[in-house]
Amino acid sequence: RKPVPVTVAYGDGIGPEIMDATLRILQTAGAALDIEVIEIGEKVYLQGNSAGIEPSAWESLRRTKVFLKAPITTPQGGGFKSLNVTTRKVLGLFANVRPCVSYHPYVTTKHPKMDVVIIRENEEDLYAGIEHQQTDEVVQCLKLISRPGTEKIIRYAFEYAKVYGRKKVTCFTKDNIMKMTDGLFHRMFDEIGAEYPELEKEHWIVDIGAAKLADTPEAFDVIVMPNLYGDILSDVAAQITGSVGLAGSANIGEGFAMFEAIHGSAPRRAGQDLANPSGLLLGAVQMLVHIGQHDIAEKVHNAWLRTMEDGIHTYDIFKEISSKQKVGTRAFADAVI
Amino acid sequence: RKPVPVTVAYGDGIGPEIMDATLRILQTAGAALDIEVIEIGEKVYLQGNSAGIEPSAWESLRRTKVFLKAPITTPQGGGFKSLNVTTRKVLGLFANVRPCVSYHPYVTTKHPKMDVVIIRENEEDLYAGIEHQQTDEVVQCLKLISRPGTEKIIRYAFEYAKVYGRKKVTCFTKDNIMKMTDGLFHRMFDEIGAEYPELEKEHWIVDIGAAKLADTPEAFDVIVMPNLYGDILSDVAAQITGSVGLAGSANIGEGFAMFEAIHGSAPRRAGQDLANPSGLLLGAVQMLVHIGQHDIAEKVHNAWLRTMEDGIHTYDIFKEISSKQKVGTRAFADAVI
Ligand SMILES: CC(C)[C@H](C(=O)O)[C@@H](O)C(=O)O
Ligand SMILES: CC(C)[C@H](C(=O)O)[C@@H](O)C(=O)O
Repeated sequence: RKPVPVTVAYGDGIGPEIMDATLRILQTAGAALDIEVIEIGEKVYLQGNSAGIEPSAWESLRRTKVFLKAPITTPQGGGFKSLNVTTRKVLGLFANVRPCVSYHPYVTTKHPKMDVVIIRENEEDLYAGIEHQQTDEVVQCLKLISRPGTEKIIRYAFEYAKVYGRKKVTCFTKDNIMKMTDGLFHRMFDEIGAEYPELEKEHWIVDIGAAKLADTPEAFDVIVMPNLYGDILSDVAAQITGSVGLAGSANIGEGFAMFEAIHGSAPRRAGQDLANPSGLLLGAVQMLVHIGQHDIAEKVHNAWLRTMEDGIHTYDIFKEISSKQKVGTRAFADAVI
Repeated sequence: RKPVPVTVAYGDGIGPEIMDATLRILQTAGAALDIEVIEIGEKVYLQGNSAGIEPSAWESLRRTKVFLKAPITTPQGGGFKSLNVTTRKVLGLFANVRPCVSYHPYVTTKHPKMDVVIIRENEEDLYAGIEHQQTDEVVQCLKLISRPGTEKIIRYAFEYAKVYGRKKVTCFTKDNIMKMTDGLFHRMFDEIGAEYPELEKEHWIVDIGAAKLADTPEAFDVIVMPNLYGDILSDVAAQITGSVGLAGSANIGEGFAMFEAIHGSAPRRAGQDLANPSGLLLGAVQMLVHIGQHDIAEKVHNAWLRTMEDGIHTYDIFKEISSKQKVGTRAFADAVI
């Protein structure tokens, strides 16, 4: 099997530890990867590069087109741009796919039957970051929704549901207030949805939809929504499965794809062999599927599930029922291996 | 005791039933109210008034300055403005106060120790409703944050916490992305918070804050946030107490105040004596405090609590442990009386 070129960034905070664990597992499982390591994030920012990434790193990404990225830290204060957002935009990663699954009874959760995939639009909305100061006392930010951008994400959600054998696609918007912007999103959902008669369709105003998601997540299957709602509600959905540390995410574009954990770099836990590598590992499993190494993806996923079932957990999974062992990052990876 | 002039709107859908129940309870408890009824909502919209309210109704509101409002329905389709939003703006109701409390064990909830007050900015943010079509394919909506608006809501939150003996005020923003708009909100929180050394202060990025709220709401006390986050997260918080039907809300301005349930008009349940009047009733209790009839407020609140404790519930509270009786709207009100 020919190694597939992949760009890897070890990130900041707990990033290096969880990336190390993840790559060890992938290698042992026989993933055929030709890894190029790039440096991004805090160190680069602090060298005075306000984007947090060097031109050579972009070259690597343009070459490999596949990016496995550990969480990074954006320094506090003005002048720094979010590299997460920049990467999504520069590489055109329009879909952010975030599966949120309960692992009951191996991880304690109030929502044992949850299996939701949040498909978040990833380039538009308030994330365009277009802000201005109108007077000394008034600031504004632009929420942008385009027809092509909306069409792409909604079609992606329906295709995803079809390919993965899902039954229902739900759409969240606030178009009782934002009739033009969220209205366009809702209308495109209805329009494109009509091409998928085999799938159930449903729309909720985001406030009451969010309430239902937090209360009875088992009522949802695939949910598609604009960027900012997706940001907030994917964190909610991941957290109520038992831990935000268990969710991986795929950022999909037309030519490029990036895979990551949905949690952050947790600088206070860095370097202590405490972090849970599961989010990044599950992101990497999505990457293996993306590059066509389905067999390895399945092997890694099963080994990880088995580790969870054996009650071997990192310290963040504090609520599990059947835990036999609390282990560090390295020992957790060893158990998966 | 001199009757206090109050404007009342019976609203749409289940509105008339829950208003009727609420007013019967208030009257029996001895509330001294001089009620003026106005017609707003669906009927007015369908008479071709796109605002859903007549000039005479505004006159009543300007006179009484206190508004008890049942939920209304905004007809689908273009051209109709949200009367909720218009009322908040015209009357300058800058603070939306939404207490979300668990009534464990009388109402089943996964979060038995919850007692959160969400204080939502109520006039600015994307609710300014300023949208435009830029090209055939691009639409935009303006998010507006002003210094005076932000100062008012944040000061209100700290004063509320002080007056009601709360310990902590938390702020949610997304200022890692919206550095100017949400950044202003966060900065004002830090600035004004410094004047309240006796209160604990805390800030979360809204995504992870929302996740924490949905998972461990007992970790929060008072939370202040911009309008749209407050809209979404107050529905989440209310719902996970056991039912969105139990939360009332106060909309507070400098000269005016409006009290309502946080749920909608539920047209499909209308006219069947099924609806839960609790949200509107608890809104009315906040109104009684506002107009200085504290004794009546306490009496009504205690009678309502006692009814819940007696296991007398409307049909929406389907998960309670100790329910003795499922009753209709009218019988529930009779039990409170
Ligand atoms: C770090 C931040 C810019 C990012 C986002 O808001 O998209 C994160 O919260 C996420 O969800 O991936
Ligand atoms: C009906 C709607 C305009 C309103 C809002 O978004 O504010 C409602 O959801 C609320 O929370 O009071």
